[in-house]
Amino acid sequence: MQNFNFCSPTYFEFGKNSEAQAGELVRKYGGKKVLLHYGGGSIKKSGLYDRVVKSLSDKDIDFVELGGAQPNPIDTLVYEGIELCRNEKVDFILAVGGGSAIDSAKAIAAGVPYDGDFWDFFSGTYIEEALPVGTVLTIAAAGSEGSCNSVITKVDGKLKRGACGEVIRPVFSILNPELTQTLPPYHTAAGSTDILVHIFERYFSNTEEVEVTDRLCEALAKTVINQTPRVIADPNNYAARANIMWAGMIAHNNLCGVGRDQDWASHAMEHELSAAYDAIHGAGLAVINPAWMKFVSKKNPHKFEQFAKQIWEVDDIDTAIARYREFLKNIGMPSSIKEFGGVEEDIPKLAKNIGLTEERDFGGYVELNIHDVEEIYKLAF
Amino acid sequence: MQNFNFCSPTYFEFGKNSEAQAGELVRKYGGKKVLLHYGGGSIKKSGLYDRVVKSLSDKDIDFVELGGAQPNPIDTLVYEGIELCRNEKVDFILAVGGGSAIDSAKAIAAGVPYDGDFWDFFSGTYIEEALPVGTVLTIAAAGSEGSCNSVITKVDGKLKRGACGEVIRPVFSILNPELTQTLPPYHTAAGSTDILVHIFERYFSNTEEVEVTDRLCEALAKTVINQTPRVIADPNNYAARANIMWAGMIAHNNLCGVGRDQDWASHAMEHELSAAYDAIHGAGLAVINPAWMKFVSKKNPHKFEQFAKQIWEVDDIDTAIARYREFLKNIGMPSSIKEFGGVEEDIPKLAKNIGLTEERDFGGYVELNIHDVEEIYKLAF
Repeated sequence: MQNFNFCSPTYFEFGKNSEAQAGELVRKYGGKKVLLHYGGGSIKKSGLYDRVVKSLSDKDIDFVELGGAQPNPIDTLVYEGIELCRNEKVDFILAVGGGSAIDSAKAIAAGVPYDGDFWDFFSGTYIEEALPVGTVLTIAAAGSEGSCNSVITKVDGKLKRGACGEVIRPVFSILNPELTQTLPPYHTAAGSTDILVHIFERYFSNTEEVEVTDRLCEALAKTVINQTPRVIADPNNYAARANIMWAGMIAHNNLCGVGRDQDWASHAMEHELSAAYDAIHGAGLAVINPAWMKFVSKKNPHKFEQFAKQIWEVDDIDTAIARYREFLKNIGMPSSIKEFGGVEEDIPKLAKNIGLTEERDFGGYVELNIHDVEEIYKLAF
Repeated sequence: MQNFNFCSPTYFEFGKNSEAQAGELVRKYGGKKVLLHYGGGSIKKSGLYDRVVKSLSDKDIDFVELGGAQPNPIDTLVYEGIELCRNEKVDFILAVGGGSAIDSAKAIAAGVPYDGDFWDFFSGTYIEEALPVGTVLTIAAAGSEGSCNSVITKVDGKLKRGACGEVIRPVFSILNPELTQTLPPYHTAAGSTDILVHIFERYFSNTEEVEVTDRLCEALAKTVINQTPRVIADPNNYAARANIMWAGMIAHNNLCGVGRDQDWASHAMEHELSAAYDAIHGAGLAVINPAWMKFVSKKNPHKFEQFAKQIWEVDDIDTAIARYREFLKNIGMPSSIKEFGGVEEDIPKLAKNIGLTEERDFGGYVELNIHDVEEIYKLAF
């Protein structure tokens, strides 16, 4: 195990009707003028918008709003949000939605007190200061409700990039599993896939002697694998939704990733799929992550033996990966880039956009150069 | 799964030489005048005391000190600490030691700004205010480094009682597994037992549909069960120490206990053993917890079936409990109250001290009245 530090100070309010706490929590964490940031109209249709607004009003909290955060949230909306917050003297950002609304809110929060272009943070500059962010989560997937990360797509050039900073970790997150019951099955399944890959990006590591984090990863993965078919069969299965939702947070607040090298090659490869085809992140991962496994398990099988035995309860690596693919297919996820409208001729551009060269590689478990990445994209067709 | 809230804001610095960060962390969390609180002389013999003092001095942090925190820390030292802090205008308490020094530090921290008798907090009054507490942990056991709990023994009457409050949760904790390498094997084993029972107090629950926390509990238990024999065989096994130390924190910051009823009868019964015989807490649990299992598994077997299968990989409940007892014996733990010098004639007094009557019972998994408790104490002889 490596030396590490860990701090996950987010306050979680979990359960039925928990969104009624929004106003009280904003008040507790110092918010007086709020930007209410959300995605499309679904929160208005479901009544969630009204309930959150009522909760704010009940605590005399003033707010302005900005909708329109879309899957793979974009820089242009972030600029708009920053300007709105400055003009309106907003001091707290409340994201109501999934990872997209939350990531967009985090980027706005970092941009407001920053003199330069907020995109600097997505080009390597560490975020030192931000407005506080709270969330009301509507999909179990990204783990952004408990993480210090944000991923934004630059419209010009279709670049999808991540930023990180302790100051953008939400001060509170409200997790009501009921809110996820109205999701279309495809989005539910993509969310579970995203959670699984957050686990696997940490699990596949060459760091030795990390049983405690290995076992925690396996515990979360097995939970998601057991519970997801239940919510696909019955979208109103509250208990299964609740188990997935709490697993999704723990899968990405890094409790299970401390003290060990991590991989993250699948995420980088998926980001290009989202940017190129506007694939939903989890669906892109469903295609890329098993292809990555096929490729790297031949080069470095040792952790895959454990993956096979502990998670899929089989002795053979190829069988374990086949089980994983079968699981993803059964919950409705795609298994080829073709399903996003991609053609094999796109591969060189996808690989090039990641920014790798013959000399520059990535991936913590198996180092991949640009040729390896092209092979993996091929396996994903 | 039940509704819940969860917040574990402690900052953890984990790994080799991490105690060198003490001064910087005290400074970061606002400490200017520190009470350095510790147990016996072992931290002076090991050089840890000097390293912590140097770290404070390097950051120009003034301190006073109070040693003498003993296993089952006592109220009289807490009163002494409160007076010292008030006289010296201490604004931060740094505990260097195990759960005893940390629990004692928490009680002092709560007592300093409180007008009344600090024992009020151990008689049901909720702690609203406290000085900030930081810790340098020297034994993986109590989980006090990440918890909001403190347990203190009142010398007059040998009453061992707990208190809880978010304000006494440590602001930072330094976890260096190397510091645990000098522990006697008995203390190491008692520490692992304490961790296991923290897990089992949460695991044995009648709350349905809690797979995520069940699996996390099992993950932690299996880690401790696998790693403890390694450190008993080789006290210098850093990797095994590290896995146990991180598991010990997660086992008690309540991440695995949210959304479910918990039991805690074994802890209450053990507290009377510690109070009566000055048994080390973990050793007392090694005697009581399997006896509790024997008794309650007959009345409510359903969770024990899962315990047998998932943790001990056997089909039979009695075999699983026997394996647990065997495990405890093999790591050097006692298996009878006799080993603490107790005699069966003590049972009525032990049971009575818990405060139960025929009408008043306790235990979240199986409700126990005073007669049940006497039966369990008998099984522990």
